[in-house]
Amino acid sequence: MSVTIRPVEAADKAEWQRLFEGYQLYYERPDLPQEFYDTAFARLMARDPRDFAGLVAVGDEGHLLGLTHYVFHPHMWRPEGVCYLQDLFTKPEARGQGVARALIEAVYAAADNAGVPSVYWLTQEFNYAGRMLYDKVATRTPFIRYNRAL
Amino acid sequence: MSVTIRPVEAADKAEWQRLFEGYQLYYERPDLPQEFYDTAFARLMARDPRDFAGLVAVGDEGHLLGLTHYVFHPHMWRPEGVCYLQDLFTKPEARGQGVARALIEAVYAAADNAGVPSVYWLTQEFNYAGRMLYDKVATRTPFIRYNRAL
Amino acid sequence: MSVTIRPVEAADKAEWQRLFEGYQLYYERPDLPQEFYDTAFARLMARDPRDFAGLVAVGDEGHLLGLTHYVFHPHMWRPEGVCYLQDLFTKPEARGQGVARALIEAVYAAADNAGVPSVYWLTQEFNYAGRMLYDKVATRTPFIRYNRAL
Amino acid sequence: MSVTIRPVEAADKAEWQRLFEGYQLYYERPDLPQEFYDTAFARLMARDPRDFAGLVAVGDEGHLLGLTHYVFHPHMWRPEGVCYLQDLFTKPEARGQGVARALIEAVYAAADNAGVPSVYWLTQEFNYAGRMLYDKVATRTPFIRYNRAL
Repeated sequence: MSVTIRPVEAADKAEWQRLFEGYQLYYERPDLPQEFYDTAFARLMARDPRDFAGLVAVGDEGHLLGLTHYVFHPHMWRPEGVCYLQDLFTKPEARGQGVARALIEAVYAAADNAGVPSVYWLTQEFNYAGRMLYDKVATRTPFIRYNRAL
Repeated sequence: MSVTIRPVEAADKAEWQRLFEGYQLYYERPDLPQEFYDTAFARLMARDPRDFAGLVAVGDEGHLLGLTHYVFHPHMWRPEGVCYLQDLFTKPEARGQGVARALIEAVYAAADNAGVPSVYWLTQEFNYAGRMLYDKVATRTPFIRYNRAL
Repeated sequence: MSVTIRPVEAADKAEWQRLFEGYQLYYERPDLPQEFYDTAFARLMARDPRDFAGLVAVGDEGHLLGLTHYVFHPHMWRPEGVCYLQDLFTKPEARGQGVARALIEAVYAAADNAGVPSVYWLTQEFNYAGRMLYDKVATRTPFIRYNRAL
Repeated sequence: MSVTIRPVEAADKAEWQRLFEGYQLYYERPDLPQEFYDTAFARLMARDPRDFAGLVAVGDEGHLLGLTHYVFHPHMWRPEGVCYLQDLFTKPEARGQGVARALIEAVYAAADNAGVPSVYWLTQEFNYAGRMLYDKVATRTPFIRYNRAL
């Protein structure tokens, strides 16, 4: 199987949404309103360099196999900023074939192109399947996340 | 002792730098060039709502006791974005008096004012002194950070 | 495939050693002297209720697929003591077929028989494949291990 | 203040119990029956080399400031076994004076005397105050504990 990575396009909406729904389900957020997906997709389509960009992985038959969303944001220690890879999802039937790795590497390339080579992401400590890959393509840090309790 | 939290101002440069140097030392980055501090301070002074803002804690005698730097950045799941509290430092002599807590709470207030109430930060798993406070004012999440290896 | 769990026997020595070598390799301890394996096996054969017991998983063709070693030791809070499952290994070709789970459950049964139902083990935080199973058959605790530096 | 470490003795029962109660409270186990403490103390008094030994820290005025309980148990990889330091407690008023460190070092010495120099213990990941000390006198490992769910 070959996988092509390209920016998400307007015609991808339905398939993109199914993938993003799968990702939200992983985080136990089923049944988000359609508005949630409409807003997110519209932001990707706006191609605002200050907002999120989306990449999709496309299989041989033209269907979407995975997605990633990333954004550049300021960093106090690095004037060029950093690249935050927030969302990453491969559909279950397409796992183990390098889709997630190809998406991460495409974000690395996009970050290099933007002159912002520092890419990072956060993942739950118990995301074992994800971390098997992340340990190969990135460095685990000792940083953990605290959230304001709202 | 009373502590006042206010935005960092041009006249604070020398004291602000001493604090930020202490913070960088914590992360084992001594001897950063003066340019590093000049650039960082200039960014704070620019008051760009898309870039970092800085708050300082001022003690009774008018000297700076601590600092924090935060930024608002886009979040794919929340159209209003999130607030990233990147830097937080209290000078050693002023610890245990609520300076860090007051700084965090001031960021919470600034985030509320901006309509972006979600505040988060990252800290090293072994930052015991910090986490004693963070456990009181925030929620530890199971998220850990991966960095692209550069 | 069916798997039978039974105590390790003298005739298992060669196959048991190959499995224990695989386990030691996982912990980056290749090339242990033959004496290491001889001593360990002799302890298992001694059937001393105060020392380790060994169980092996046997496949359809009579070959060993996995092993586990456990010991009962005193616990200050529980007069009956606890059961420490120290070693657990399934040979790579036999993974994903329930061998490790069957071994763990056999230790649970042995612990129940001994009147020492509290079974625990330690695993490296990044043993993702192991933890996928452990999360199903046990409870992760917040306890981490410190070793005297020797 | 000077601290003396010595084995717990019969005359220590009342003070020892108060310390062990404080320790159990840390683990959110208040109101254990008197029988729990009687049994634990009797085991220490039995001086069984296969069961737990107890050390206490005594201050200038002869009162107990802290305690530790340790046991030697078999280890599959080391014929000589290992030393498990299970309990460690310093009374709140006596903290920050080296009591816990002196107790740990006394266990190290006892382990050396017994020819079982490998000492280890488990602590909750969020035991910040404890870990500040443990990082100085021991090595943090990546091992985490799983418990059979009972």
